[in-house]
Amino acid sequence: MTAGLFSFELRATDTLSAARASTFVTPHGAVEMPAFMPVGTQGTVKGLSVDAVRATGAQMILANTYHLALRPGEEVVKTLGGLHAFSGWSGPILTDSGGFQLFSLAQNTKVTEEGASFRSHIDGDLFELSPERAVAIQETLASDVAMVLDHVVALPNDQSVVRDATERTIRWARRCREAQTRGDQALFAIVQGGLDPQLRADCARALAELDFPGYAVGGLSVGEEPAEMYRILQATVPAMPADRPRYLMGVGRPRDLLEAIRRGIDLFDCVLPTRNGRNALAFTDAGPIRLRNVQFQCDPRPLEYDCPCAGCRHSRGYLRHLSMANEMLGPVLVSVHNLTYYQRLLAATREAIRHGRFSEFADAKLRGWESLED
Amino acid sequence: MTAGLFSFELRATDTLSAARASTFVTPHGAVEMPAFMPVGTQGTVKGLSVDAVRATGAQMILANTYHLALRPGEEVVKTLGGLHAFSGWSGPILTDSGGFQLFSLAQNTKVTEEGASFRSHIDGDLFELSPERAVAIQETLASDVAMVLDHVVALPNDQSVVRDATERTIRWARRCREAQTRGDQALFAIVQGGLDPQLRADCARALAELDFPGYAVGGLSVGEEPAEMYRILQATVPAMPADRPRYLMGVGRPRDLLEAIRRGIDLFDCVLPTRNGRNALAFTDAGPIRLRNVQFQCDPRPLEYDCPCAGCRHSRGYLRHLSMANEMLGPVLVSVHNLTYYQRLLAATREAIRHGRFSEFADAKLRGWESLED
Repeated sequence: MTAGLFSFELRATDTLSAARASTFVTPHGAVEMPAFMPVGTQGTVKGLSVDAVRATGAQMILANTYHLALRPGEEVVKTLGGLHAFSGWSGPILTDSGGFQLFSLAQNTKVTEEGASFRSHIDGDLFELSPERAVAIQETLASDVAMVLDHVVALPNDQSVVRDATERTIRWARRCREAQTRGDQALFAIVQGGLDPQLRADCARALAELDFPGYAVGGLSVGEEPAEMYRILQATVPAMPADRPRYLMGVGRPRDLLEAIRRGIDLFDCVLPTRNGRNALAFTDAGPIRLRNVQFQCDPRPLEYDCPCAGCRHSRGYLRHLSMANEMLGPVLVSVHNLTYYQRLLAATREAIRHGRFSEFADAKLRGWESLED
Repeated sequence: MTAGLFSFELRATDTLSAARASTFVTPHGAVEMPAFMPVGTQGTVKGLSVDAVRATGAQMILANTYHLALRPGEEVVKTLGGLHAFSGWSGPILTDSGGFQLFSLAQNTKVTEEGASFRSHIDGDLFELSPERAVAIQETLASDVAMVLDHVVALPNDQSVVRDATERTIRWARRCREAQTRGDQALFAIVQGGLDPQLRADCARALAELDFPGYAVGGLSVGEEPAEMYRILQATVPAMPADRPRYLMGVGRPRDLLEAIRRGIDLFDCVLPTRNGRNALAFTDAGPIRLRNVQFQCDPRPLEYDCPCAGCRHSRGYLRHLSMANEMLGPVLVSVHNLTYYQRLLAATREAIRHGRFSEFADAKLRGWESLED
């Protein structure tokens, strides 16, 4: 698939699963997929310089339209040169549309066919977001990939509520496309449909007809069991175009990534590596390390011997000390490690897919994580 | 002066002032003086990786005995390989003795001739610190330079209280020296004497007779006017041995550094660059920049055009955004800038002294800072 400044090319497809390796080209560089985007909510991956983010192996980052529109405001970002110059991140950037934050953060959200109005979680100011406004803000921010405004609802919910929100999401996707004016920004559609496989597949097919350059699965990882999420992916992904990037929004744990890749997903974002990093929980191939545990007080080993990250140049004992002493460097170094862990996992996954051994790779990783149950 | 693994060599002396350039060699490397040590209170310069600290130009860092003895405890640091392995900082490290923290942080401090007992500011536990114990803890931490335990008192104070504490400081210095067992750690004495020039000079001479490898001026920058501090330095420094490093503890603003160097000081530490960095105040040659001020909201300029630091790869507008949004990266980047500012100032000062133009250099800097009044 080539569309203007963007292209998506499949490099390898697994024979035993729907996993695939691909290259997605944007105006700010190529992304080898499957890929994981660190979350830079407010135009910064919490605590990390852009060099540190790059050093983890990250290729593309995510920023949040809702947060940036509230503070500092998209016009300030534009005046300072757009998101790339603003944040200093020269690689590809994806912005979400604010749909998820309307659902999770905003207060007194009212959704009509026209759009959503809500109170800011910062100062309670009234804010209005329509499909057109969501596109306009993202065009002002100047990300490489913009997301359509979707209508996210709590799960489980009445079938009629979910169906209504899903159908609105499709109508809003069309309005977003019609509002688009930039040729250097790819707009991705979002599949909704709750936990109803049929609704999900119908939504995916309806959006596919609109011919977007990329498709996301939204409204998952909102409290449902992982098995539920895998079941929904199983039903949804085959109805999404095979020649476009497929992005699973807001997911997830390392095992969720492999299970989703197995079902045909190419792109992820999630706050887990950085949020857990700030809470002194480190990911490793042998399961999680909770650094505040006293057993690590005098542990001279790095989190992982073979990890090249800046955190792994220190002992677990030192990282624990930083955490116990409430030193900023603790969250920074454990976030660096966790993001590096995710990027190394994705790099190894791409390699496994290209060499036709994804299933054995994934199974071995999953066995190693058996103690990783958070 | 050469003593075991340490040496101190004067490289140049200013003809118009007491400023001098020198090299101080320690088991973990040489320090070009005058030098500024970033403060790594708990074994970390707040928010900065050791690579980031090194990149600011820092040669030597300071760590606090009091803080590390309370948490994680000096035996934990030793088990993890000593302060260098623990913190990852491979260059020279100086530890203070805890004397200043007894005065500023501890609760219910009781000082007798034997030593001090006090309640920890963390958990209220009873803690005892004597000259012998201060040396033992620092030997366990394994810093390159240890400081004697001194008796710091509030200023202004009764002449008899100050005299008593000063005389105790001299007796404790002798006890510290007698308690020393490591040959790879230099023990520096501390001149006290409040704001009494005669007491200061007498203390300096008494300590000089004890032949320490280095001397500090303590108990200043505790609220007195800068002019008072300069006056005391003027009276004290000439009584300190010329062939040993002279360290002014806990000072100060950029102008204080130049005024102290003019009076013969070689070494400094201070929390100002990092503490101000965390409060979004940046040092520049044209005076301070308070980034939270709305005038910087859309300012595309770096803090300083010629500064090579990681912070100056971003706009003032972005740094302001990080601060307003309470993002960790804000304190990190402004701290990086401020430490870089201090190190560049010290490097330029050494250069000026070596080329016999210290006075004009200092006068030009002081004129530039005229707006810098905090």
